[in-house]
Amino acid sequence: MKITMAHGSGGESTSQLIRDVFAKHFHNEILDKLEDSAVVPGAGKLAVTTDSFVVTPILFPGGDIGRLCVCGTVNDLLMSGAKPMYLTCGCILEEGLDIEVLDKVIASMAETANEAGIKIITGDTKVVENKGGESGLIINTSGVGFIDENLDVPGPFKLQDEDRIIISGFLGDHHAAILGTRMGIESNIVSDAAPLCEMVGKLLDNGIRVHAMRDVTRGGLGTVLNEFSSSSKCVIELEEEALPVSPAVKDFCGILGLDPMYMGNEGKMVLSVHRDDAEKAVSLIKESKYGENCCIIGRVEKNDQTAENNSVVLNTRIGGKRIIGLMYGEGLPRIC
Amino acid sequence: MKITMAHGSGGESTSQLIRDVFAKHFHNEILDKLEDSAVVPGAGKLAVTTDSFVVTPILFPGGDIGRLCVCGTVNDLLMSGAKPMYLTCGCILEEGLDIEVLDKVIASMAETANEAGIKIITGDTKVVENKGGESGLIINTSGVGFIDENLDVPGPFKLQDEDRIIISGFLGDHHAAILGTRMGIESNIVSDAAPLCEMVGKLLDNGIRVHAMRDVTRGGLGTVLNEFSSSSKCVIELEEEALPVSPAVKDFCGILGLDPMYMGNEGKMVLSVHRDDAEKAVSLIKESKYGENCCIIGRVEKNDQTAENNSVVLNTRIGGKRIIGLMYGEGLPRIC
Repeated sequence: MKITMAHGSGGESTSQLIRDVFAKHFHNEILDKLEDSAVVPGAGKLAVTTDSFVVTPILFPGGDIGRLCVCGTVNDLLMSGAKPMYLTCGCILEEGLDIEVLDKVIASMAETANEAGIKIITGDTKVVENKGGESGLIINTSGVGFIDENLDVPGPFKLQDEDRIIISGFLGDHHAAILGTRMGIESNIVSDAAPLCEMVGKLLDNGIRVHAMRDVTRGGLGTVLNEFSSSSKCVIELEEEALPVSPAVKDFCGILGLDPMYMGNEGKMVLSVHRDDAEKAVSLIKESKYGENCCIIGRVEKNDQTAENNSVVLNTRIGGKRIIGLMYGEGLPRIC
Repeated sequence: MKITMAHGSGGESTSQLIRDVFAKHFHNEILDKLEDSAVVPGAGKLAVTTDSFVVTPILFPGGDIGRLCVCGTVNDLLMSGAKPMYLTCGCILEEGLDIEVLDKVIASMAETANEAGIKIITGDTKVVENKGGESGLIINTSGVGFIDENLDVPGPFKLQDEDRIIISGFLGDHHAAILGTRMGIESNIVSDAAPLCEMVGKLLDNGIRVHAMRDVTRGGLGTVLNEFSSSSKCVIELEEEALPVSPAVKDFCGILGLDPMYMGNEGKMVLSVHRDDAEKAVSLIKESKYGENCCIIGRVEKNDQTAENNSVVLNTRIGGKRIIGLMYGEGLPRIC
């Protein structure tokens, strides 16, 4: 069955679509009321985030747009030190979209939300005409999280001298999976889209001094670290030898001339951690789901006189130094 | 200047677009941090809502997609009895969109948010290819509001026998403005997009017993009242004579054969109010901005044996009775 403009009317066809697809999968006592605003219990300090997802293809190796949007929003909340609590789901459907595909994506959202312990509490659906090509699907998810009043909320401007830079796993998998699918390249690379609740929970529960924390998405590690270094006015020094890239992604990048430093992930985070807590942080992440390839990749130099301040420097395998600048231009369009 | 795919990369071009357009207009101490999640003070009970706006054209008589999205989301929060507090802004830009048009829309969002007393605290921007026709713009806004712990939150299932049904003003203006523009019909009809904070505030401050409250958007008054009657298992009886429609919209509907009962507004609400509070409610709304044409249009019959339960009945001008059913099919696509 296909989506028609009538599914966007706000009348009976819209109600039926909401009941048959969204309410069926998202079912919980708050959403079931199907009110325009969901009413929920609150807390003293809130984190609020929003993200729209336009990835093509909608279904890809290792995931789909539904898993992606929940992971992206949950991870944004986690990175601010919040416990993810509530999620909204705003769908833009192109007419002609297969309702079976929509059902699969929405089921995947429900499953991922369940894994992440976040409740999908309200939503909205609009239908737009298809102006050509395959019928698409865009999803906006906004999230609300609660922050412990006593938490010293991490931020990109809080890096300290001699902090260690930690990455939670392999770089570039999501980017390579999407690009490979679009180019029809056969490989065993799958997207790493994952909610990082367990590892972040362990770090906070164990009092690890996390000064900054960010998920590595569009723009890649290079973009995140440049933001850290310019917000905190420091040099970040990375060891090329230490950067974790899976053999399959390494080959893929070699063939296509891609740099994993600027490739997006959807289930990885980079942290700046107090030097004395760094080893403990790595072992806590390694014990967590999705964290088995975690490692230290660099350090923070607040008082480096040899390099320009606000820069990210890579010590290369052959003993050179390379400045890791911001990414210019377009990277890979519609990766998330 | 035109939007390019590079503006969606997450790299330097994206940052520049965010600084030059979004941060410039939305500027406040929370958003200025440009974190993925905004951290804000919370409250005991929250209302959360989301809405995507796909209206075409982007600019129309009486408003634009920016004013529309703020009004729509603010009104959804108000309807649940919440004070609108925080708003997110997720933009989907089609490449080729004029940055001047985007700037105008975002300025309008900022101005409307200011009028409504809500803060835009976080956002996200994605760029997609234009598959044909004029370059479009889709905006998702999600909102968070705080609810007074002592408020008896109104709901569509709370209608009581002999409640009065009140409408805050003329029906059909937004729908007629959009349709007229698309068809190139000259008229003085303008969209009624407006935030209803003042009138809702006055009702709650004065202890008016509002049992249900809903903004009249897609699907129109007929759709909202059907939801009220089926949730509360009651008959709603309307007087055709009392339904307020402006002379210009009445003429417009006459020519095109449209029924104002199913036409969308973006600055009107319908309420079910305890019969003893109804006159007071009308005069409070009339004193408020956007409420000058408020009136009572009908009543609730919980124990009507003559009509089927869960139905909306219109007493026509000529003494007949007409059942107002749900709207089937598509109404006007992309009206909000």
